[in-house]
Amino acid sequence: MTGKKPIDSFAVVFVSKRTNVDGYGEAAERMLELASGMAGFLGVDSVRNPDGLGITVSYWESEAAIAAWQQHAEHLVAQRNGRSKWYEYFDLHICRVVSSRTFEHQD
Amino acid sequence: MTGKKPIDSFAVVFVSKRTNVDGYGEAAERMLELASGMAGFLGVDSVRNPDGLGITVSYWESEAAIAAWQQHAEHLVAQRNGRSKWYEYFDLHICRVVSSRTFEHQD
Repeated sequence: MTGKKPIDSFAVVFVSKRTNVDGYGEAAERMLELASGMAGFLGVDSVRNPDGLGITVSYWESEAAIAAWQQHAEHLVAQRNGRSKWYEYFDLHICRVVSSRTFEHQD
Repeated sequence: MTGKKPIDSFAVVFVSKRTNVDGYGEAAERMLELASGMAGFLGVDSVRNPDGLGITVSYWESEAAIAAWQQHAEHLVAQRNGRSKWYEYFDLHICRVVSSRTFEHQD
């Protein structure tokens, strides 16, 4: 829940199924820390259920910012580990925000 | 995990925090059933964790298909209930798919 996003910003939708291989948690935390420090990073929403199915949506100012993050040296290593051992499968969709709104319940 | 999506299709990213109010499960299931039957529906990925934080991403052929779904009579009732009792807060981002890929681990 990171709020309304600007029109023409970008969302990276990452849907993944985890294996039971260890070492993922620390890496995921480190990636979040690194991504948050990248230029153009706008926020991230991330949920994983007990079955290992997860959705992470990160938000970015531009496609260039996403490309820079995807090419970050430590992130490249994590991507390699993801493919070789941490993920059974994943989908990755890069999307441009067309409209965005937020709601908060008023008690 | 619904696979690669066509470029220029649309993703609706719904990030929500649930309350503890009952009746949500049945309604969510019914909405999924209804949405799946709509013209232009391409699939849905949905995860909620034990804390009540959830992300649902539904995929659509066009913005018109999304608009038709948002105006569906039963969906309008569910949206009203969502705002009045089922969600503490939510974000809704409508996005156009720029690129999409999928990965499956080869054992």
